[in-house]
Amino acid sequence: MERVEHHASFGGWQDVYQHDSISLGCSMRFGVYLPPQVEDVKAPVLYWLSGLTCTEQNFITKASAQRFAAEHGIILVAPDTSPRGEGVADDEAYDLGQGAGFYLNASQAPWSSHFKMYDYVVDELPALIESSFPATDRRSISGHSMGGHGALTIALKNPGRYKSVSAFSPIVAPTQVPWGKKAFTAYLGNDPENWKQYDTVELIKTAQERLPILVDQGGDDEFLAVQLRPNLLKAACDEHGHPLTLNQRPGYDHSYYFIESFIGNHLAHHAEALS
Amino acid sequence: MERVEHHASFGGWQDVYQHDSISLGCSMRFGVYLPPQVEDVKAPVLYWLSGLTCTEQNFITKASAQRFAAEHGIILVAPDTSPRGEGVADDEAYDLGQGAGFYLNASQAPWSSHFKMYDYVVDELPALIESSFPATDRRSISGHSMGGHGALTIALKNPGRYKSVSAFSPIVAPTQVPWGKKAFTAYLGNDPENWKQYDTVELIKTAQERLPILVDQGGDDEFLAVQLRPNLLKAACDEHGHPLTLNQRPGYDHSYYFIESFIGNHLAHHAEALS
Repeated sequence: MERVEHHASFGGWQDVYQHDSISLGCSMRFGVYLPPQVEDVKAPVLYWLSGLTCTEQNFITKASAQRFAAEHGIILVAPDTSPRGEGVADDEAYDLGQGAGFYLNASQAPWSSHFKMYDYVVDELPALIESSFPATDRRSISGHSMGGHGALTIALKNPGRYKSVSAFSPIVAPTQVPWGKKAFTAYLGNDPENWKQYDTVELIKTAQERLPILVDQGGDDEFLAVQLRPNLLKAACDEHGHPLTLNQRPGYDHSYYFIESFIGNHLAHHAEALS
Repeated sequence: MERVEHHASFGGWQDVYQHDSISLGCSMRFGVYLPPQVEDVKAPVLYWLSGLTCTEQNFITKASAQRFAAEHGIILVAPDTSPRGEGVADDEAYDLGQGAGFYLNASQAPWSSHFKMYDYVVDELPALIESSFPATDRRSISGHSMGGHGALTIALKNPGRYKSVSAFSPIVAPTQVPWGKKAFTAYLGNDPENWKQYDTVELIKTAQERLPILVDQGGDDEFLAVQLRPNLLKAACDEHGHPLTLNQRPGYDHSYYFIESFIGNHLAHHAEALS
């Protein structure tokens, strides 16, 4: 593991590391924010999963979450959104292949040899973080858009593993929307039954742990009606008694200007659960 | 003038406009943040000048100043750093030509036909802002690196025009450092006497208005010793009785991680002067 960036930030350090991932079979980068508190004590960790086209850079340069991580004493870990490199399968479209890992384990060629973001985020990355940094094993998870999908599905599939979960503008029903149908067909094959294991609305039905879900959704998000459809999440949570706080934010779009405006609320939510 | 971006941000709007600049003879973009208060009242304006290689995007996406502008009710205006376009002179180096306007009026060919960033920032842009947006004529100015140089020199050369001035990691003595000597030779010719009109340390000597200067400087800034040399500013202010608050920030570098960490202090400083 090699440190490739190191910046003082809000009394702590915003670093970027590069390492060879076993799950993904390629070199990967992740951002890690170490708050000032880790000089004295270990800190809990919030994992942030980014959206389509993003790398580890988007969240660490644009969300200004470090301000609140420093305040609450939380480590922030922001991985890349897919395996990368010349030997990794890719597609010309922005919503398939590199930059579009969808936080699942692909079963179909040519994707199945590297696209194991689920294993990477759930197991490999936390093990690396907890052995390499002053981190406790108290974890929370959040993300944006495709990364909101990742955060919600990973929390639902791993009861007890995360203290809290939240999302901005998540894809909540990938089996029902164009982004998800396209990616899941490629990564998981033609049988929609195999897609349900990575669909938040489906997972809510059988969730073993009623971990409260916090979602913020911009009202002027250009992907709201076709790709995101938070009403499907609300209906599923209502039907199955799953606790959900769905903050509708009129006027806000899908950008980091939206995330930045409300990231402080999400960090406070996670800080309470992690403390 | 055409609006090319429009994002809800902290209860206000982060917009980007494009217009044909008379001073510069080309199309220019600037960011403008309109805080929520302007729905009811006009607001004062803080101009932000960015550094080498930047466009109007760097500050608006990375500094998270909107949070504090919304709190204090301040409009933020962030212009590009030089004239742009195919018909505009340029140089292969990052520190000359497009992206490196140095906030002066060039007198030398081929630069003199477009490189009039001083006129643009001092006159054209404020006139446009104050006639097109709910802005008062109360102005402050700040910036980073080359833009810190721009903010300090423009405030010193225009007594009474700005209520307050601040800078992050400014080039304070361009006539004495490599970045400045190279650019000023190209833009202003070989006679160093002609350079002094755009040099903060020189302007401090004859300042007609003792407007207090606020500067934050990172201690691990890679440009500190050779290009920035804040000790020269301190010596000039000490000698001439010019009020200066120079905050040395150990560990911080030249990046927006540094700016973001302390931008709240600068916004509070300007808010007090603008109120």
